[in-house]
Amino acid sequence: MQKRKNLSLEEYVEGIKIGNTAILSQAITVIESNHAKHATLGAQILESALPKSGNSVRIGITGVPGVGKSTFIESFGLFLAEQDYKVAVLTIDPTSPSSKGSILGDKTRMPKLSGHQKVFIRPSPSGTTLGGVASKTRETMLLCEAAGYDIILVETVGVGQSEIAVHSMVDCFLLLMLAGAGDELQGIKRGIMEMADLVLINKADGSNKTLTKQAKSSYQNALHLFPQNANSWTPKVETCSGLTGAGIDNVWSIITSFFTLIKSNQHLQIRRKDQANYWLQQSIDEQLRIRFFENKNVQKEFQMLRSMVDNNSVSPFRAAKQLIDLFEKR
Amino acid sequence: MQKRKNLSLEEYVEGIKIGNTAILSQAITVIESNHAKHATLGAQILESALPKSGNSVRIGITGVPGVGKSTFIESFGLFLAEQDYKVAVLTIDPTSPSSKGSILGDKTRMPKLSGHQKVFIRPSPSGTTLGGVASKTRETMLLCEAAGYDIILVETVGVGQSEIAVHSMVDCFLLLMLAGAGDELQGIKRGIMEMADLVLINKADGSNKTLTKQAKSSYQNALHLFPQNANSWTPKVETCSGLTGAGIDNVWSIITSFFTLIKSNQHLQIRRKDQANYWLQQSIDEQLRIRFFENKNVQKEFQMLRSMVDNNSVSPFRAAKQLIDLFEKR
Repeated sequence: MQKRKNLSLEEYVEGIKIGNTAILSQAITVIESNHAKHATLGAQILESALPKSGNSVRIGITGVPGVGKSTFIESFGLFLAEQDYKVAVLTIDPTSPSSKGSILGDKTRMPKLSGHQKVFIRPSPSGTTLGGVASKTRETMLLCEAAGYDIILVETVGVGQSEIAVHSMVDCFLLLMLAGAGDELQGIKRGIMEMADLVLINKADGSNKTLTKQAKSSYQNALHLFPQNANSWTPKVETCSGLTGAGIDNVWSIITSFFTLIKSNQHLQIRRKDQANYWLQQSIDEQLRIRFFENKNVQKEFQMLRSMVDNNSVSPFRAAKQLIDLFEKR
Repeated sequence: MQKRKNLSLEEYVEGIKIGNTAILSQAITVIESNHAKHATLGAQILESALPKSGNSVRIGITGVPGVGKSTFIESFGLFLAEQDYKVAVLTIDPTSPSSKGSILGDKTRMPKLSGHQKVFIRPSPSGTTLGGVASKTRETMLLCEAAGYDIILVETVGVGQSEIAVHSMVDCFLLLMLAGAGDELQGIKRGIMEMADLVLINKADGSNKTLTKQAKSSYQNALHLFPQNANSWTPKVETCSGLTGAGIDNVWSIITSFFTLIKSNQHLQIRRKDQANYWLQQSIDEQLRIRFFENKNVQKEFQMLRSMVDNNSVSPFRAAKQLIDLFEKR
C-alpha cells in the first residue's frame, strides 16, 4: 500500500481476517483515533473482531528502564517466531507524547524483531489518561488476535500505575530485574513484584553470571514468603540474558507450564471474565470522570473546593457531594 | 446519658471538644447515618471538627483472622493508654452486616481495653460499598482527633480491598503475620505485604519463640529485596506477643522512630495531602458511580450490555459509552 485510502468496514474486516498487517495497522489507527468521525467505524471494526479474539497467549512484561526490556523482547520474540508463532508486541506508555517515535514504541529498539515477517510491533498509543491509553492497547490486542497472532507481548515501564493496567489485560506477568538488589530496584514501584508470575533476573551473561545466580536464590526465598496466588501457581524466579539468549527457551517452557495449569484449573477463563468486567467498570469510571470534569459548573468550583479539602475546611466526601450536585444540575 | 435526646449542633461541637465520649458516639452515629435528615447536621459537625483534626498518630493494622489482631490491639492499646495516650480503635469491615455487634467491632473482643477510660472503641460502620464504609471510618477518625485522641488504630482484616482503604487514611501500616510461612498466609492478599511499614510476627510466646525468630529473619531478607519507599523508611520486621505483651514496647518505639523520620523529611505532610486528594477523587468516583447505577435508563440496559461484554460481542469501552450516553439523556 503506497498511499492510504479510506477503506470500507468490509475491507478492514477482511484484511484483518487474512492477517494483512498494513490493514491491521490502519485499523488500529482508526481505533486509536479520537476523532468523532472514526468512532463508529472503530467500534464496528472492533465488534467484528471480538468473536475471533481471545485465542492468544497474553504476556505482560515490565521492568525499569535499563533492565534490558528491549533486548529481552527482541530475543524472546525471535525465539517464539522461530517456533513458528505469530507474535505481536504492544506497549503501554502513558508518558509517550505520541504514537510516532515514542521511546518505548520505536521500532529501531528491536531491529531484528521488527523486520521479521511473523512479528507485528505497535508502539504505545498517545493519550492523556492512562485508562484511555490502556483501553486502546487492550483493543489493539483484540484486533491482533483476530488477525491470527498467537502470542501478544504487552510491554510497559515498571515505574507507575501502568503495570496494573497491563496486569489487567494479560494472562501472565513477567517482571525483569537486575542482580544486585538495591539502587537499581528503586525505580520499581512497590506492589509490582507481587503481581509477577515469573521474575527474570536479566543480564545473566559474562562476569555478571554469579551475581544473577545469587539474586535468583534471594528472590526465590522472598517469593516463597508471598501469599499464594488464587490460581495456585507458585511464581518462579529465573535468570536469563536477552543479549546472549541464555535461558530464553526456559522462559517459554515455564510460561507453557503456567498456561497448562491455569487452563486445567479454569483460572484462565475466570481471569479473562474478571478482566472484561474490570474493564467495563474502569471504562464507566473513566468516562464518567471525563464528562464530570468537562462540566462547566464543576470546572468553576473544583479548584476552590479542592483547596478547601487541602486546608481541612471541608471533608473530601462533602466536597465531592457538592461538585456532583453541580454536575447533575446541568 | 440515659436516653438519647436530639442535640443541637453547638452541643455536639462542645461535647466533642471536651472529649465527652457519649456525645462523640452520638455524633459518629449522625455521620454514619444514611438518612437525609442527618446529612446537613453530620456535615456541620464534621466541618466544625476538621480544623481541630489531624494531630493524631494514625496507625493501620491488618492481618488475617486468627493472627491475633484483637489480642495484639488490646495489649498495644493498653500499653499506650498506660503511657497516658488517649487511644481510639476503629475498624473497617465491609462485610460487617451492621454496626451493632459486628465480629470485628464487638467490644467483648477486647474486654480490658473497652473498659479503659482513655480508650474509645468504635465498631465498623455498616454500608454497602467499601468506599462508603471507609469514608465514614475516615470521618470518624477526624472526629476522634477533634475529641483529643492522640493515637488512632484503624483495624481491618487482611483479606481484601479494605487494606488499600486503610492504607490511604493512616500514616503507618502494620501487618500482623504468623510464623511458619505457608498455609496460614494464604488469606493475606498479594500486594498487602509491600504496603507494610512494620511486619509483626505475632504469637512469639512459649514454644513458638524459635519459629517466630526464624520467620523474622526470613521476612527481613525478603523485605530487603523490596523497592525502597518514597519516604525513605526501611520497613522493619519484629516479633511480638499480644498474649504476653512481649515486644509491645518495641513496636511503639519503632513507630516513634518512623514518625520522627517522616516528620523530619516532610513526608507526613505530603502523605496526608495526597490522601485528602485521594479521598476527594475516590468520593467523586464513588458518588458518580452510585448516581449512575441509580439511573433508570442505565438499570434497564446494564445487565444486557454486561452479558454482551462477557460473551465478547461488545467491547467494555463501547458498552460503557452506550451506558453513559443513556445516563446523560435523563
